[in-house]
Amino acid sequence: MFFASDNWAGAHPKISERLHASAAGFSRAYGDGELDKAVYARFSEVFEREVAVFFVATGTAANSLSLAAYGKPGGISFAHREAHILEDECGAPEYFSHGSRLYPVDGTLGRMDIGNLERAIGRYASENVHGGRPAAISITQATEVGTIYRLDHIAAVSAVARKHAVPLHMDGARFANALVSLDVSPAEMTWKRGVDIISFGGTKNGCWCAEAIVMFDLDRAREMAFLRKRSAQLFSKARFISAQFDAYFDGGLWLETARHANAMSASLAQAFESSAVARLGWQPEANEVFAIIRKDVAEKAQAAGAAFYTWPTPTSLAGQISDDEALYRFVTSFATTSDDIGRFSELLR
Amino acid sequence: MFFASDNWAGAHPKISERLHASAAGFSRAYGDGELDKAVYARFSEVFEREVAVFFVATGTAANSLSLAAYGKPGGISFAHREAHILEDECGAPEYFSHGSRLYPVDGTLGRMDIGNLERAIGRYASENVHGGRPAAISITQATEVGTIYRLDHIAAVSAVARKHAVPLHMDGARFANALVSLDVSPAEMTWKRGVDIISFGGTKNGCWCAEAIVMFDLDRAREMAFLRKRSAQLFSKARFISAQFDAYFDGGLWLETARHANAMSASLAQAFESSAVARLGWQPEANEVFAIIRKDVAEKAQAAGAAFYTWPTPTSLAGQISDDEALYRFVTSFATTSDDIGRFSELLR
Amino acid sequence: MFFASDNWAGAHPKISERLHASAAGFSRAYGDGELDKAVYARFSEVFEREVAVFFVATGTAANSLSLAAYGKPGGISFAHREAHILEDECGAPEYFSHGSRLYPVDGTLGRMDIGNLERAIGRYASENVHGGRPAAISITQATEVGTIYRLDHIAAVSAVARKHAVPLHMDGARFANALVSLDVSPAEMTWKRGVDIISFGGTKNGCWCAEAIVMFDLDRAREMAFLRKRSAQLFSKARFISAQFDAYFDGGLWLETARHANAMSASLAQAFESSAVARLGWQPEANEVFAIIRKDVAEKAQAAGAAFYTWPTPTSLAGQISDDEALYRFVTSFATTSDDIGRFSELLR
Amino acid sequence: MFFASDNWAGAHPKISERLHASAAGFSRAYGDGELDKAVYARFSEVFEREVAVFFVATGTAANSLSLAAYGKPGGISFAHREAHILEDECGAPEYFSHGSRLYPVDGTLGRMDIGNLERAIGRYASENVHGGRPAAISITQATEVGTIYRLDHIAAVSAVARKHAVPLHMDGARFANALVSLDVSPAEMTWKRGVDIISFGGTKNGCWCAEAIVMFDLDRAREMAFLRKRSAQLFSKARFISAQFDAYFDGGLWLETARHANAMSASLAQAFESSAVARLGWQPEANEVFAIIRKDVAEKAQAAGAAFYTWPTPTSLAGQISDDEALYRFVTSFATTSDDIGRFSELLR
Repeated sequence: MFFASDNWAGAHPKISERLHASAAGFSRAYGDGELDKAVYARFSEVFEREVAVFFVATGTAANSLSLAAYGKPGGISFAHREAHILEDECGAPEYFSHGSRLYPVDGTLGRMDIGNLERAIGRYASENVHGGRPAAISITQATEVGTIYRLDHIAAVSAVARKHAVPLHMDGARFANALVSLDVSPAEMTWKRGVDIISFGGTKNGCWCAEAIVMFDLDRAREMAFLRKRSAQLFSKARFISAQFDAYFDGGLWLETARHANAMSASLAQAFESSAVARLGWQPEANEVFAIIRKDVAEKAQAAGAAFYTWPTPTSLAGQISDDEALYRFVTSFATTSDDIGRFSELLR
Repeated sequence: MFFASDNWAGAHPKISERLHASAAGFSRAYGDGELDKAVYARFSEVFEREVAVFFVATGTAANSLSLAAYGKPGGISFAHREAHILEDECGAPEYFSHGSRLYPVDGTLGRMDIGNLERAIGRYASENVHGGRPAAISITQATEVGTIYRLDHIAAVSAVARKHAVPLHMDGARFANALVSLDVSPAEMTWKRGVDIISFGGTKNGCWCAEAIVMFDLDRAREMAFLRKRSAQLFSKARFISAQFDAYFDGGLWLETARHANAMSASLAQAFESSAVARLGWQPEANEVFAIIRKDVAEKAQAAGAAFYTWPTPTSLAGQISDDEALYRFVTSFATTSDDIGRFSELLR
Repeated sequence: MFFASDNWAGAHPKISERLHASAAGFSRAYGDGELDKAVYARFSEVFEREVAVFFVATGTAANSLSLAAYGKPGGISFAHREAHILEDECGAPEYFSHGSRLYPVDGTLGRMDIGNLERAIGRYASENVHGGRPAAISITQATEVGTIYRLDHIAAVSAVARKHAVPLHMDGARFANALVSLDVSPAEMTWKRGVDIISFGGTKNGCWCAEAIVMFDLDRAREMAFLRKRSAQLFSKARFISAQFDAYFDGGLWLETARHANAMSASLAQAFESSAVARLGWQPEANEVFAIIRKDVAEKAQAAGAAFYTWPTPTSLAGQISDDEALYRFVTSFATTSDDIGRFSELLR
Repeated sequence: MFFASDNWAGAHPKISERLHASAAGFSRAYGDGELDKAVYARFSEVFEREVAVFFVATGTAANSLSLAAYGKPGGISFAHREAHILEDECGAPEYFSHGSRLYPVDGTLGRMDIGNLERAIGRYASENVHGGRPAAISITQATEVGTIYRLDHIAAVSAVARKHAVPLHMDGARFANALVSLDVSPAEMTWKRGVDIISFGGTKNGCWCAEAIVMFDLDRAREMAFLRKRSAQLFSKARFISAQFDAYFDGGLWLETARHANAMSASLAQAFESSAVARLGWQPEANEVFAIIRKDVAEKAQAAGAAFYTWPTPTSLAGQISDDEALYRFVTSFATTSDDIGRFSELLR
């Protein structure tokens, strides 16, 4: 009953096996080996056009370097107020961009409201040296609260980005979970809707450590090689990443693990809906469930071995949570089992 | 016959197996899991005192964050002219230290000459705001050219550091190779000789990706947690590093792999010494061999499948290499076999 | 009728004369001359304790270096949402602090509300590496909207700073205007209320270019010399700043010019209060007046030679400004004359 | 007898008077006033083509922002080993360029040897992510040791810059002294020989504080406005710089003061040449004289009120200075008088 985070799981057996199978033999370092190149090509297939791929160590690195690639003095990037880059990265995005600023944009259920975004970026549209100027827009897909940007929403954000001549970044730490939830192709969810650069995460979806920056602008990608190395993010034995992604894509494993994780969340949501001591905060759309639970029940469940965290109450739920209740987050993954859900459901009765 | 670099090898079977065996199950993320804590404790045992351990993604990150931990405005760090931080890290150490400078110090066979070091640091001893001021001294152990700092040499460097009130950093990308070459304990080679902070590398010695910063100043170590996170170097599933180090230390595997690599280099050196078309550049002391070879012979060997790189001629060999010769570097690792050496020796006849 | 900003004025005659009189002769450079030292001593007298003084080129530099002096990885500084460091400095404070973040705190009339401040800083009180940690609190005195922090308000902000072990910075671009408005001593308005570091501005109050960082923590001040030089803010002929400050303090000129500027604002406020086509946005407390004026009247006044800017409507005035009105800012200075006010008052009839 | 530095002088009477005369009246701030624009136009006249001009606070700022304007991750800039950016700026150039590196190039009498430069930059020509890549070449005109790059030497440096697709920066802290020494036009000494960006210094040649970045690439100049502001180098009352430059250029005052300073150095050189206790280190070509003097004589002169500094012995003079001698630097300026030289000459007898 480990629902604390999808990064509490280890690695999917197929991914771990592939890594193990790749341990022998020699190969060129720094991502120039045969397997590395094959995996880059695989990414281009996945996205149905030629992309530039850069492995990095963490999702924070992917996000920070993505923004740095488009950084400029006085630059301001716009993201949802609860975005990971704003709340959970210790200032790394600002550090990598030499002090560029992140501007929080409000919107319900983790998605930036287009009107709010337009007003926010509009404040800096004149590009004056005192106030600063727009540098990028970043969306999180799936969002921090387990919801999904629909395709038309992405397109609307992209239109704002185009209007202000800034790129659209997608923080895809849970890219696969969003993808299978929308049931569209990677191309549909990204460049066909105006996304320019992606933090493509594999770690939360069954890898040990497999994060990549995917760029559609191949010219700009040339600089990324230097940005990455200067940030100490260039792995020497890069094939240990390649091996993971190789297994990840093979036979659609990544979609399968994401579907499983999402299904586990859906199942968990049903448990909350049928509980007398808990209710859903909102409908899950990927692999995270947020529920309002009686504190005593939650504590009993934790004492019984269930791991999950409390979560700050969003404005949208203000006044709807009584003093003896709290909001909690549950994250499912490839490693969550129906048995976990079943046992936890018992605890909610 | 892959002698290009020790990072062309994959992972040692025992390390890969341990990683594979750790793939199942759940654990706290970000290095707070049980296995992580056990591995930190193991490091303290290895060093015979309490140390602070920080996993990072690359050796460049370990070096750059080590220097950043002691950075200051106008700071200048001193390292051998051929040091990795000066030659191979794309300015990462300077970037992480906000523009602090690296000052090259000369010395034969990859080791800083103490007199040169004293003169270099002495230029900045007055701490004036125009010229800058000393920030750190960094030694590479084993050095970039396969030699070793003897214990008294380390102590002499450390004395210079103490005199100028700066820390002594050890770039231990090949820490184990140096250790077994000296046949001393980790404590003897480090803090007992005045080393303050170490880039402790496992990757080149049989891990997939296992680099750690080891700090002896536990007070200062508290800041490192923030420095590391801000640099996007905090792994979520950190236990994939812990699992590697766990196997690495078990039963002294790390010393065994290092001894093997060094022995392969010694064996390769003999091959050069008994060759009519090649000779040693200098005696190897760890797992790298530098040899002067007739270019046609070298090219033929490469055509036959031997991988190795040419190397810039150091001042000490100036005038000793004829036009039809060149200097080449050979690196051995846990994965190098006697058969590799034997086949390559044949090519030198 | 130049009310656009107090930096549209030139230099006060007495300051300009003193500078002119100091042009001849030789003196040690970089702030080590006799006049420089005398002016540093004068600052200590003004503040009734020993202070460290650092001349810099701009108010932005004073603010940015002040925050940098207390910067730390993952650091977050708290300031009013409309503060100059947040709205008008192109990300310089973040840049100088290597990506540290500024957190906007709301409060009426340019002053942070203590409750809001406590909630904001409280979010980061646990010092976790993901969310970041408090680094500083900054208040603007006088505020960006021409109001003043009362002494007890400063003390209350300071108490929050102490509780979280962070320094209190005062952006005193209009320090003198606030001081004479409160009619207290510099000591009373600063260190006696817990202020640790000040951006002490002379430029807006009659100097050409005279900005200083004033520090009460002399130990920490030693690092500032390096921070300043590394930021290219160390003047060679520093006595051109000293000469200005020398005249500035002489005979209380700085208080006189500030009183004059404040009086001109008070007089301007009366003109708005007695006008049928305009009204005060709020009572001025220093040298800035904000007024709601019929747009056609404002445009006519501008056409007649009056210089002043429109200002974004603060939340507190939301719904109180009709479509044919707007909010405008008027800034007075040592150079504003009663005649200016009189002529402008005519335009408001 | 103040020969310590040309920044020990104050301001030329004509410049100080013009500044004083400009003190009254109002003007747009931040360099957008009428006088500012007139001065920008004057710069374009001086350089015989349209240039972009950016006032900054210090020569260090001009140098650092010039290099930052062309900075890139992993970038390495090449300058003479004794260049001000390398020896006297506390790491500011590296800081402004986010850790870009400065590479020292040797050459006699303060000028980079073309062969050395080619070898140095050639090491990084392959633009690999480990070693870094060329970012800029910087020459100091006049050099730190009072010599001048001839026009063909500048052209030769420029050819190397072109070959490696990097810009040529000129540190013109003593631009005017070099210009009158060569007796050519500003255009001839700069863009007609391939210079792309200039640190144009007025401070050492009679201004209080007047430093400008002059750019010939108007497209790239657009970014400089943001770089400057983010570095806290944008003056509000910028006309105090404009007024100085206005007087500086009027009637060729700047050339006159530079000629005077150079003549004083020539006169001082003669005094050394005819002295029995001193001799020239090398022939001065601008406003700095380096002389080898008997230490007892030098100390007596200092005791008699002559201000000048000892200077590190360059390699070219190694072995030519006896133990009872030392090398000293003498700098002359607009404020040096024949009487100063005469009195000092007496002390050399």
